[in-house]
Amino acid sequence: MSTLARMDAQALAALHRDLTRDYEALKGRKLSLDMTRGKPAPEQLDLASGMLALPGNRDHLTQSGEDARNYGGLQGLAEVRALFAPVLGAPAAQIVVGNNSSLAMMHDFLVYALLRGVPGGSKPWSKEEEIAILCPVPGYDRHFALAESFGIKLVPVPLTGDGPNMDEVERLVADTKVKAIWCVPQYSNPSGETYSSETVERLARMKTGAGDFRILWDNAYALHHLGDERPHLRNILDACSEAGNPDRPIIFASTSKVTLAGAGLAFLAGSPTNVRWYLDSAGKRTIGPDKLNQLRHVRFLKDLKGIHDHMEKHRSLIAPKFAAVEAAFESRLAPYGFANWTKPDGGYFIILDVMEGTANRVVALAKAAGLALTPAGSTHPYGKDPLDKTLRIAPTYPSLAEVKQAADAVTLCALLAACEKRLASEG
Amino acid sequence: MSTLARMDAQALAALHRDLTRDYEALKGRKLSLDMTRGKPAPEQLDLASGMLALPGNRDHLTQSGEDARNYGGLQGLAEVRALFAPVLGAPAAQIVVGNNSSLAMMHDFLVYALLRGVPGGSKPWSKEEEIAILCPVPGYDRHFALAESFGIKLVPVPLTGDGPNMDEVERLVADTKVKAIWCVPQYSNPSGETYSSETVERLARMKTGAGDFRILWDNAYALHHLGDERPHLRNILDACSEAGNPDRPIIFASTSKVTLAGAGLAFLAGSPTNVRWYLDSAGKRTIGPDKLNQLRHVRFLKDLKGIHDHMEKHRSLIAPKFAAVEAAFESRLAPYGFANWTKPDGGYFIILDVMEGTANRVVALAKAAGLALTPAGSTHPYGKDPLDKTLRIAPTYPSLAEVKQAADAVTLCALLAACEKRLASEG
Repeated sequence: MSTLARMDAQALAALHRDLTRDYEALKGRKLSLDMTRGKPAPEQLDLASGMLALPGNRDHLTQSGEDARNYGGLQGLAEVRALFAPVLGAPAAQIVVGNNSSLAMMHDFLVYALLRGVPGGSKPWSKEEEIAILCPVPGYDRHFALAESFGIKLVPVPLTGDGPNMDEVERLVADTKVKAIWCVPQYSNPSGETYSSETVERLARMKTGAGDFRILWDNAYALHHLGDERPHLRNILDACSEAGNPDRPIIFASTSKVTLAGAGLAFLAGSPTNVRWYLDSAGKRTIGPDKLNQLRHVRFLKDLKGIHDHMEKHRSLIAPKFAAVEAAFESRLAPYGFANWTKPDGGYFIILDVMEGTANRVVALAKAAGLALTPAGSTHPYGKDPLDKTLRIAPTYPSLAEVKQAADAVTLCALLAACEKRLASEG
Repeated sequence: MSTLARMDAQALAALHRDLTRDYEALKGRKLSLDMTRGKPAPEQLDLASGMLALPGNRDHLTQSGEDARNYGGLQGLAEVRALFAPVLGAPAAQIVVGNNSSLAMMHDFLVYALLRGVPGGSKPWSKEEEIAILCPVPGYDRHFALAESFGIKLVPVPLTGDGPNMDEVERLVADTKVKAIWCVPQYSNPSGETYSSETVERLARMKTGAGDFRILWDNAYALHHLGDERPHLRNILDACSEAGNPDRPIIFASTSKVTLAGAGLAFLAGSPTNVRWYLDSAGKRTIGPDKLNQLRHVRFLKDLKGIHDHMEKHRSLIAPKFAAVEAAFESRLAPYGFANWTKPDGGYFIILDVMEGTANRVVALAKAAGLALTPAGSTHPYGKDPLDKTLRIAPTYPSLAEVKQAADAVTLCALLAACEKRLASEG
């Protein structure tokens, strides 16, 4: 077997025949598999099944004696903020606990910025002629869709393996129109990379044209290790404070992939100024969050060790799924030399770069064979991957057996599409 | 004893001496009572104590077999929407279930209208030079504060006992700048009145200058009866549909004062067009609501009879508190002839109209005596009651014994302030 690039026309034609035969067989198996989203598997949710009867009757008083059943407590329970302070890398006093979705807190941050403006700014962002947000690519489609839905211009910046290309970022943020950057700093969605300390320092120090520039630091996978290595992520609050830009970062996180995907807690953290500003706006929106769900989390997770122990159980369920995908790619794609993929140490995704110009074709082939993949291009602003080559593989939700089937199916579709492409360019 | 208006200077001076002596005695008792907000008492929350261990371990499947623990289900569980359809007066398909706060859904409605525009409109509301919202007064301070915080102009309209003065409303909505009206149509906060069928019909039929005018129908007290009478509230969706304005109303409600104030469910209902529009924006904000809390509600309340039975238990706890306040006002204020108050058949508030120009003084006197009242003026846009006479009394949270003390204290402060005022105008 030689790499696809070195095959002559005859070898390509033979390979195409074999792959087409295999693909027809695959279709005949009538699979129904879904690898579109980073969803926890039912077995992962079972890990938190003890929560469904918590806090339990007559258990509704917080550490400070508040009644968690009633209104109020806008910032969230003190014990929850203390528990997650080390996870967020922020003092408990600088943390806000929200309801079940960190995406909602990012949405609300943008809304408050658009309609009221942020500290350090001279007017609401919606009053500017045009504003833009930097989008490291490949990135998270919901980040992009959220900003796009408010008419914010999405500006792609390539990721390097150590975070975004900082020369590019520093050049772009000189523009006063650029108000923010999306970052998933650890086990980035979907590339899996963790920002280096140098990247974090440069983000903290860089000169921005906009005086009210914000780093939207979505640390969604702070706890989500797959290997034994623990990456060191430089604390963004500290780095920005030390650089004299304390109000620059807004940190987000959630327990959606720790406890229960639909019934977790979301967190926002930042400088005292940012937190006061956020609470002032949030206080117009609600009298307070669901504090019983906060109590439920404290009762279940107990302490930081409890959180880490719980994450180890997740790891034992999902690491084999990642390994299965990597093994399939290694054995079935590596020999042909055209594909690349990530081997993440954490997070929820694998990036598979197929042959340029074939990602859409691979997704279509997979779909026709009963395997749903995230649409090609979804990792890029406006859903447009200029090279049409990046696929996001989400191995957590299906069972291990299904993941193996799905990974085999993906390799077959990627190979077939690449072979078609080579044949077309030969012809 | 004669009415205050008929007392001569000597009688007034004698009364003032007596009241001052009583007031000093009141201060000596060092009360610490809070009647500021419409909060359920702990005993009311105890009624839902069975919920704190629900749905229970291994109970996480919905009627249709979805896993309520995972992401998704943006519109809310079908069984929750079916359960509350008769409460909202809308088909289940036209209901959205949110997290714990209907105020948050009102906020988000306004945000989507401001940043994206609503069906029937030509542009986002934030792109208009100026927009205004009609505010029936006395009204709910959080409604007013929310709209004000977005720079929406608040235009007061007097309530009549049958809802807002519709001649005034019809005149005002001819202005294209007027985009919406706040309504609490049943047991209005705080007047307690229920809109008559004629009021609802006129709201539905009236010609509005803005083609994208909305009625924000906050039916917060749909289930919250105090007496045996059940008011008939004309269905706003039907009325608007029949009038050819199906997209005009947006209905809000919640279970905050049914189950748990901080951990209830919120609802939005409207025309199919409005619901699609809302979900389209909400889908950018979140992957779905907390469906376990939805399941918890269904397991606990079971059916419509379960809801009504539960509300009867609330009634038996809070109706005596309302009766105690009314009895105190009747026995201690009625003889003096200057004050008026509501005798609501439902809801959470009593309006006490004290002597003109004294409401702020009454609140200050009460505060100095250890009784916190809602700030005078809070029932009016911008916190400004031009007559300085309307007080909102919230009797639910304190115990019955405390409510009696507080009601006596309020009457004393109201009398003292009135007496001071009369003396000042005599002098």
